[in-house]
Amino acid sequence: MSTGRLEAFSDGVIAIIITIMVLEMKVPHEGADLASLRPLLPVFLSYVLSFVYLGIYWNNHHHMLHVTKRVSGSVLWANLHLLFWLSLVPFTTAWMGENHFAAAPMALYGVVLLMAAIAYWILQRSILCKEGPDSLLAEAVGNDLKGKISPVLYLIAIPCAFVSPWISGGLYILVALLWLIPDQRIERTMHEHTETTP
Amino acid sequence: MSTGRLEAFSDGVIAIIITIMVLEMKVPHEGADLASLRPLLPVFLSYVLSFVYLGIYWNNHHHMLHVTKRVSGSVLWANLHLLFWLSLVPFTTAWMGENHFAAAPMALYGVVLLMAAIAYWILQRSILCKEGPDSLLAEAVGNDLKGKISPVLYLIAIPCAFVSPWISGGLYILVALLWLIPDQRIERTMHEHTETTP
Amino acid sequence: MSTGRLEAFSDGVIAIIITIMVLEMKVPHEGADLASLRPLLPVFLSYVLSFVYLGIYWNNHHHMLHVTKRVSGSVLWANLHLLFWLSLVPFTTAWMGENHFAAAPMALYGVVLLMAAIAYWILQRSILCKEGPDSLLAEAVGNDLKGKISPVLYLIAIPCAFVSPWISGGLYILVALLWLIPDQRIERTMHEHTETTP
Amino acid sequence: MSTGRLEAFSDGVIAIIITIMVLEMKVPHEGADLASLRPLLPVFLSYVLSFVYLGIYWNNHHHMLHVTKRVSGSVLWANLHLLFWLSLVPFTTAWMGENHFAAAPMALYGVVLLMAAIAYWILQRSILCKEGPDSLLAEAVGNDLKGKISPVLYLIAIPCAFVSPWISGGLYILVALLWLIPDQRIERTMHEHTETTP
Repeated sequence: MSTGRLEAFSDGVIAIIITIMVLEMKVPHEGADLASLRPLLPVFLSYVLSFVYLGIYWNNHHHMLHVTKRVSGSVLWANLHLLFWLSLVPFTTAWMGENHFAAAPMALYGVVLLMAAIAYWILQRSILCKEGPDSLLAEAVGNDLKGKISPVLYLIAIPCAFVSPWISGGLYILVALLWLIPDQRIERTMHEHTETTP
Repeated sequence: MSTGRLEAFSDGVIAIIITIMVLEMKVPHEGADLASLRPLLPVFLSYVLSFVYLGIYWNNHHHMLHVTKRVSGSVLWANLHLLFWLSLVPFTTAWMGENHFAAAPMALYGVVLLMAAIAYWILQRSILCKEGPDSLLAEAVGNDLKGKISPVLYLIAIPCAFVSPWISGGLYILVALLWLIPDQRIERTMHEHTETTP
Repeated sequence: MSTGRLEAFSDGVIAIIITIMVLEMKVPHEGADLASLRPLLPVFLSYVLSFVYLGIYWNNHHHMLHVTKRVSGSVLWANLHLLFWLSLVPFTTAWMGENHFAAAPMALYGVVLLMAAIAYWILQRSILCKEGPDSLLAEAVGNDLKGKISPVLYLIAIPCAFVSPWISGGLYILVALLWLIPDQRIERTMHEHTETTP
Repeated sequence: MSTGRLEAFSDGVIAIIITIMVLEMKVPHEGADLASLRPLLPVFLSYVLSFVYLGIYWNNHHHMLHVTKRVSGSVLWANLHLLFWLSLVPFTTAWMGENHFAAAPMALYGVVLLMAAIAYWILQRSILCKEGPDSLLAEAVGNDLKGKISPVLYLIAIPCAFVSPWISGGLYILVALLWLIPDQRIERTMHEHTETTP
């Protein structure tokens, strides 16, 4: 089976997850001055962080499926599993924002990120399994350093939330920045292939 | 007519249905500790069950349309009919979760699942009608054992909810597991076809 | 420009409109018996009616764009204009349902349907304008009897709502049934074309 | 990488943003006469304005990507950046509508429009960067007069809101009208190309 419909469905779900998060920024019903927006600041900041995370997932998902040729039933389910954890992001984002980055919401945010990272890794493995070790994807993924560091950082951030939520927050931002530095592995690999095949 | 736009529209509706269910998990506005999440547990569990059901429908829909060549007006309406019943799943899921799996919500959940199963069967029949008995789909569907057992189990589960909601719940989980065991009929049929045509 | 992205965008908007209507069926927070569902009955009935209307629009839109080859800037805007009026359907549906089919909501429901019908007619004209009078679409649309009767029936239904909402309701159901009888003009035209070109 | 999935994802997000705005038009729960709709008028008017703005963005985005051949990682992020600012439109629209076009909401509306315009300009630049100065897009964009005037008008409208919100409102409508006059640059360029290549 081709990847077309898998991509379309994932795009739909991720697009809705992103947009649903905005609904948590409740319009202040009383008060039309800029001061009435101040209580929304933590909600806005959590929205920005989660938007970046979902953007990273969409971007990496896009790159990965771009070099995938066929998908099997197990890949479909691995993908749904990833979407399940991502679908919980709006909930944890809202809980975190409304409670001004308190300990428990910060920890839960990390748990959902950790589960999503694991789900992404499972998806990657099940695609690699089908594509083979000599595939373009296997070469592009390489030793997958970022993919290995991120879960470790989440695992550190989760208990840290109960010591100081700021440590967890800093770690979540760090992981996001790590991924924002464009992941040019797949692009580079494809470029090399194009160059060697003139 | 080709199946492209039918798939895109169904993907859109199913993606939104899945994501809308998360909106029912209302963020606890007062309380930032893990204990305040406890009341959400039944809502979360119903979300997981419905997510799996919608994943199964998307998966089977994907497989079925993959071997469908053309769609007629009646197929478009049969598909909309299926989407109608699926669109009621977020409502029954929320009612079930918020009432801690009480009798009436459990029964209604089964009624909607039953109607969706019937709608899926009608869709399958109207596609088969167009594709013919010698089509790839007809071969793949075969005697459709799962498709026949599921409605029977729902029919048992609905009255059982008024005896003990746990029986219904168990039956809904059982049907989900039945389908989660990958439905490799279509994949197998296609594989055989590829093998016999070297 | 090809029609691909116009179709994808319209599918997205219509899919979301349909699903958003379900959100108006608020889960009864107190009461887990079937009796607590009774107040939801008018909301449910309006949902069914609007679902059918949006299904008809999606279906006709699908058929029309299927025989359209290229779209211009004015077609894009005519399409957005149609989507604007359709996007108001969830609002009028909810208002109608929650007020048990009172006069004003019934009339407003008709106004939005009327505007959507006019917008559809404008879209059809702007596509025909580009496709030409000898196009497949021009032949398929023909004298467009249904498209002419529907606005007339809406125009009757709107003032009637203030006499008896049941008359308007009956007229809305009548128009829906008129369109539900499969609009086989385009399918027939295409069929004939295929037959004459053996 | 091809533009297909970028377009599909952007379509999804914009479609949801448009439809989510309708959710802010809360159904009047008490009152089934036309008078009870009057308080909704400013909310409705802001919805119309934002619908037009999002329609303009979708239209221009459609035209721009139509003449784009390949997208890079930086284009993906520039596109997500644009979608981020557009995703805030429902919030500012609702705040503006519910407060009857008060000063602060009017100014914030302009800020979000300004940021979206800047994000669109960045996206355009990063695509042009990849396509080259002799590309079809570079020719079509030309001196981009509208793209330069709009941010200037927003910059005037933002402080003006604190003098008189009506000035800002007028300027927002003016910019919308500027863009509604069909942007035939790309269509004309393509037309000329087709004509010169008979």
